[in-house]
Amino acid sequence: MKVRKLLGERLKDVSDESQIQSQILMTKGGYMKPVGSGIYSFFMPTQRISRKIQAIIREEMDAIDGQEVLFPVVMPASLWQSSGRYMSIGSEMARWNDRSGNPMVLGMTHEEAAVHLANNVAKSHAQYPFMIYQIQTKFRDEPRARGGLIRVREFTMKDAYSFHTSQEDLEKYYDRAYVAYERIFKRAGAKNVIAVKSDSGMMGGKISHEFMLLSDIGEDTLVICPECGYRANMEVAESIIKNQPSVSAPLTKVETPTQKTIEEVCNLLGREANTTAKAVVYQENETDKYVIAFIRGDLEVNETKLRNYLKKEIHPATEITPESGIVPGFIGAYNLNADATVVFDRSLEGMKDLVVGANEVGYHYTGFDPERDLENTPDYVDVAKVSEGGICPVCGKPVLQVRRGIEIGNIFQLGDKYTKSMGMTYLDSDNTEKNPIMGCYGIGVGRLIASVCEESHDDYGPIWPMSIAPWQVEVCNLRVTDEKVKAVAEDLVSALEAKGVEVLYDDREVRPGFMFADADLFGVPVRAVVSQKTCERGVVEVSTRDKTLKTEFSMDTAADEIAQLVAKMLESFK
Amino acid sequence: MKVRKLLGERLKDVSDESQIQSQILMTKGGYMKPVGSGIYSFFMPTQRISRKIQAIIREEMDAIDGQEVLFPVVMPASLWQSSGRYMSIGSEMARWNDRSGNPMVLGMTHEEAAVHLANNVAKSHAQYPFMIYQIQTKFRDEPRARGGLIRVREFTMKDAYSFHTSQEDLEKYYDRAYVAYERIFKRAGAKNVIAVKSDSGMMGGKISHEFMLLSDIGEDTLVICPECGYRANMEVAESIIKNQPSVSAPLTKVETPTQKTIEEVCNLLGREANTTAKAVVYQENETDKYVIAFIRGDLEVNETKLRNYLKKEIHPATEITPESGIVPGFIGAYNLNADATVVFDRSLEGMKDLVVGANEVGYHYTGFDPERDLENTPDYVDVAKVSEGGICPVCGKPVLQVRRGIEIGNIFQLGDKYTKSMGMTYLDSDNTEKNPIMGCYGIGVGRLIASVCEESHDDYGPIWPMSIAPWQVEVCNLRVTDEKVKAVAEDLVSALEAKGVEVLYDDREVRPGFMFADADLFGVPVRAVVSQKTCERGVVEVSTRDKTLKTEFSMDTAADEIAQLVAKMLESFK
Repeated sequence: MKVRKLLGERLKDVSDESQIQSQILMTKGGYMKPVGSGIYSFFMPTQRISRKIQAIIREEMDAIDGQEVLFPVVMPASLWQSSGRYMSIGSEMARWNDRSGNPMVLGMTHEEAAVHLANNVAKSHAQYPFMIYQIQTKFRDEPRARGGLIRVREFTMKDAYSFHTSQEDLEKYYDRAYVAYERIFKRAGAKNVIAVKSDSGMMGGKISHEFMLLSDIGEDTLVICPECGYRANMEVAESIIKNQPSVSAPLTKVETPTQKTIEEVCNLLGREANTTAKAVVYQENETDKYVIAFIRGDLEVNETKLRNYLKKEIHPATEITPESGIVPGFIGAYNLNADATVVFDRSLEGMKDLVVGANEVGYHYTGFDPERDLENTPDYVDVAKVSEGGICPVCGKPVLQVRRGIEIGNIFQLGDKYTKSMGMTYLDSDNTEKNPIMGCYGIGVGRLIASVCEESHDDYGPIWPMSIAPWQVEVCNLRVTDEKVKAVAEDLVSALEAKGVEVLYDDREVRPGFMFADADLFGVPVRAVVSQKTCERGVVEVSTRDKTLKTEFSMDTAADEIAQLVAKMLESFK
Repeated sequence: MKVRKLLGERLKDVSDESQIQSQILMTKGGYMKPVGSGIYSFFMPTQRISRKIQAIIREEMDAIDGQEVLFPVVMPASLWQSSGRYMSIGSEMARWNDRSGNPMVLGMTHEEAAVHLANNVAKSHAQYPFMIYQIQTKFRDEPRARGGLIRVREFTMKDAYSFHTSQEDLEKYYDRAYVAYERIFKRAGAKNVIAVKSDSGMMGGKISHEFMLLSDIGEDTLVICPECGYRANMEVAESIIKNQPSVSAPLTKVETPTQKTIEEVCNLLGREANTTAKAVVYQENETDKYVIAFIRGDLEVNETKLRNYLKKEIHPATEITPESGIVPGFIGAYNLNADATVVFDRSLEGMKDLVVGANEVGYHYTGFDPERDLENTPDYVDVAKVSEGGICPVCGKPVLQVRRGIEIGNIFQLGDKYTKSMGMTYLDSDNTEKNPIMGCYGIGVGRLIASVCEESHDDYGPIWPMSIAPWQVEVCNLRVTDEKVKAVAEDLVSALEAKGVEVLYDDREVRPGFMFADADLFGVPVRAVVSQKTCERGVVEVSTRDKTLKTEFSMDTAADEIAQLVAKMLESFK
């Protein structure tokens, strides 16, 4: 491919420097163009990267006995009604009516379609297990599309669905998928990827993992134990809570005229935050009913844990009415007279001298002891966020780290949520009809491209791993007007292409600095420079985009040596 | 791949025998499952066929300097407003509002997206010509989805867009695309494909061709000259009209009390249909204004030609009101007093003794001579359908054939319709800003699969061409319980796979007839049968799905010989 013919424009600058690096560099480099919010068109280099990643994914999916199928982008709403998700999923699902007035949706995931396809054609236990997957366009009407390809509305995704006759068999396959995912990310050149336990959210099911590329710009927060390897998404991360031994004190009402926050109250009373009980108020989405979570003052509530405990969708309270009996800034568990669901985090268990609100403007209590002062001992549950230095729930060491990550893949044990609701059964060996157990496995291709760029770039452009690079070698001809230079460069291009090397060839009449700046943006892993000087000396200058190699090859052997270099660099991604 | 693990069910019968053969066989064979009207999910065999076709398309598009890109499925309506097509396209375009209330559409074609991508990044004439293409899912809300994959609502399509600085350059490229299309269809194993001149319809532009697979179930009607090779879609087909010499006669009003049709009037008056002038009434879509087309009684009006002449969308008149002055059954050009656009087909030119309606219930005229009897000589235009045996407009021989065809591809010279309306310009060598000239080029992948099946099948199933077959060889193990047979079959499978041959392996414990019936439905081009008998005789039975070969290979050399057979069969599609 000749640069002069390649559609796309390399830009000096992009206007919005608040963007993340992959977005800036891929915009600068002519990789993509926004068509709408979270919707992009892609130029040739991106499509080449995407197809290489798709090829890797296919190989690994086929290697774990996947059957590639294709589900539709557009589906009748009835399909999603049959699983119940037509109602339970909100406005992130695009809905419309076709010309006949039938309600339709755009696929944002394809569990329903997978069950629809497998239903009635896998009627005997002998056909199990099996896995079907597709690589297809999906649309999710994200409220906050951002970060270039990190959070978009339309995206290409590999989604796989496995069907099993037992939980044990699912778990066995889940482990194979886990390993396949590790291989995919390694082969695609993503380096700092870890799998963490995660929340299953709208997917249903219990056990799930997210594959996270560690990155400061990640939207997810992860908890990692560097000692034992415990890893979880903050949403479900656990830690051991050890409370300081506390001494019983009498329940005493104290004046806190203007002190509402934990910090203000602690300052006034000379107490530490970890001897207070903070109240955080939520509302149930459906009924607006209040939920008050009490938690030790130095900790934060984990909304996902709270939701999972309540089994109800919730949101931070938007308005607290006077009639509710809730007195913002002065909420306490003692003498609380409010129509609200009350939850106690286990960080409060065994505490004997807590500072709590008095449910009266201007007053708090000290000396609150839940077990002594409440009519019924509370059920303590874990709704706390883990914090840096927390105690690992597995190895018990106080070394938990909190990191950011980009979710580049996920795997779920779904159970029978979809097969049951959609009435898919098979005849088991004991002659009874059963619902298959499912797993599902997703990878967003575009997000993976951006994540690799985020991890592998310098100030001047992406540094694409050889395994997914749009081209393997860029040949820069610094003097196309010189017939000798032109002949050498073009011979090199032909010789490389004859060896199956993918070459991007730049023979534009531009300054070397301009050409190299573009080359940096193309991020092609190997660069070969041909100029009057190199020709005089009978060499080709060869360097790698990651700057680990800068050398010269004899003109006569350059094609061979470059091809070998490419092969060697490819090796490291196997 | 093992048949026992392949998801999908082979059916004995399909309920609706009114379907076309490809639909019946692909449904019976477990290739696809309807998800909604005109919306399918595809099992593994179809996806494998589809990917092979896509690979062929990619190679041929790359060979004519195509750059593979990707446009979004979902687009903001504003993009389609900028070209004017948001208004001009009807309910076949899916429209909806996203969560923020922005009007969105689903892509049914991507001219707008192509111009959007190329706009501002191809600013110099030196960058031209270039071609970008994608293979992507499209949605077209067809009112009459039918024929399995022949007419669907959601489909995978290759669409390409070329950009040029002159009409000459476009034509040069158009010819290359034409040849690439011929190669694609040949390589995909479609045999009876012809290119015909076609109507550009909603695409705009003047010159366009459709690639038609000749088939009785085709929805399109084609006109072909077997003498000189003239080919056109009926919509735009021309023929030379020669009228019989006619002798002038006096204009005479005759009673035709109940005779309204040409046939009835001819019977009563003892005339031939080709001496009458028939009136066909349409209405303009926008205003409901009437359009009356007069044409020789033995001919039919070609609605597309009439629309193109009027440059207005029309439809057959739904209701003719008494106030209109139009008297159905008795319409004539003489003394016509109606608020209607009147069009004369050139078949009436020079006629001197026509039978025409008298615009009065119960009466016709004979002896009508337009030139003599009308105030102004009409402008005769060609709005007639060509009929079997018509006179070829190129070679002049009365041998035109009318055939049916399935449109499996199309190419259009678009002109500057989109670049002009969307404001895309480049700086030409003369330093002036100009709008590029475009071409576009489409192939529906699913329709091509179904068309090949339609052309290449027998009563028992598809006969897939080796170049696109889901697998190249099916190994049938007729006695899996026999260890010796099992070992021979599995060695053969391994040996073939080691040679890169794609194998479908059937080792189910089923009757041979059952296994062969399934094999016929899989349509795999080469079949190798291993049984107790063949093992005793030291051979493998090998046959081709198209029944042109039935032989035996020695067990020792079978893998080699089968691999050679596959290679040879592949050769014929190059």
